[in-house]
Amino acid sequence: MSASDDKVEEMPVLYSYWRSSCSWRVRIALNLKEIPYDIKAVSLIKGGGEQHCNEYREVNPMEQVPSLCIDGHTLVESLSIMHYLEETRPQRPLMPQDCMKRAKVREICEVISSGIQPLQNLIVLIYVGEEKKKEWAQHWITRGFRAVEKLLSASAGKYCVGDEITLADCCLVPQVFNARRFHVDLRPFPIILRIDRELENHPAFRAAHPSAQPDCPPEVAK
Amino acid sequence: MSASDDKVEEMPVLYSYWRSSCSWRVRIALNLKEIPYDIKAVSLIKGGGEQHCNEYREVNPMEQVPSLCIDGHTLVESLSIMHYLEETRPQRPLMPQDCMKRAKVREICEVISSGIQPLQNLIVLIYVGEEKKKEWAQHWITRGFRAVEKLLSASAGKYCVGDEITLADCCLVPQVFNARRFHVDLRPFPIILRIDRELENHPAFRAAHPSAQPDCPPEVAK
Repeated sequence: MSASDDKVEEMPVLYSYWRSSCSWRVRIALNLKEIPYDIKAVSLIKGGGEQHCNEYREVNPMEQVPSLCIDGHTLVESLSIMHYLEETRPQRPLMPQDCMKRAKVREICEVISSGIQPLQNLIVLIYVGEEKKKEWAQHWITRGFRAVEKLLSASAGKYCVGDEITLADCCLVPQVFNARRFHVDLRPFPIILRIDRELENHPAFRAAHPSAQPDCPPEVAK
Repeated sequence: MSASDDKVEEMPVLYSYWRSSCSWRVRIALNLKEIPYDIKAVSLIKGGGEQHCNEYREVNPMEQVPSLCIDGHTLVESLSIMHYLEETRPQRPLMPQDCMKRAKVREICEVISSGIQPLQNLIVLIYVGEEKKKEWAQHWITRGFRAVEKLLSASAGKYCVGDEITLADCCLVPQVFNARRFHVDLRPFPIILRIDRELENHPAFRAAHPSAQPDCPPEVAK
């Protein structure tokens, strides 16, 4: 048996929290590409947040989920992870071939990942304070969704960009869930709502849903 | 003369504000790739911000700079723009060939573009309020730079990832400038400081600097 035969392809490990929208994005991408993976749950709540413990800080210096151990390396930042999967696992492409369409996918991903999510994530809301956090989150989600809806009015087909599921859809669905958590009025965003409905029963999206996660509290799980 | 001869390749137009770190990222990338471009200045200050006027909202639904008109389309979101340039103008590559190194570049870009910049940009600071804004900005920049420094300790050569300039460097230098604006103590970040020093006299970075922009107020311009 040669040394190379010894090497067993290790299963990727996703550090994930059931309700984290950034973890959820990556779970959808892994599921769509049918990449088997193990989950290591990191509770963002327990004991002030397991993401801040020394052991996890070595995994992810931003002290956030997700992180993905894959191909002998640890990757952080959900969009970076998804693009790595796209480049190394080309099955079931999540990016269009056309450069301008690729740019349109990235625009929607970026508006959500830079323009909305960072302003309503847990650590920022803790800093904003209990009293103001709902109004704060609503403000930034509404502002961002106005832009997303406008971008979608030019790019959407059945999904965010054309008729194939892309990384933009992996970002959109978890952000809609967060919008509902913060009771954002979604009626001004008919295209967002239509795409969300289109995807809610897709098997890859269903399996990635917070309520289907091993660390989802039993009282919340469906 | 045929119809196609009539078509003149139009010069790209960058909607930019001299001090906007996201505009600056794109200016660096355009300069490194030696792509000539025109600047349309959008003042984020004048009259409550020209980015909020109806005309500009049609250009950029997030009401932010930069936007780039290129190849007959308008692109928004700095990282999306830079990746489009990289995919369509392969001269002077700003991404490594190796997929894992590409992921490392994207990680640094994302920590800055999602984890730092959105929390200290002008519109958020207005919302946070005059009294608290300095401490708020310092808090998030310091937190993000701790992560960037850790990532760089594994990835950096002469620049952020290895010895070639990448998109990560295009994001880092403007963020260091913002850190200084908010009087962040940068002494805990020796690798960030070294790379910033390495790049400050690079012609493409110098030409992209706020003080070299046509809309920089004369009292600030060098």
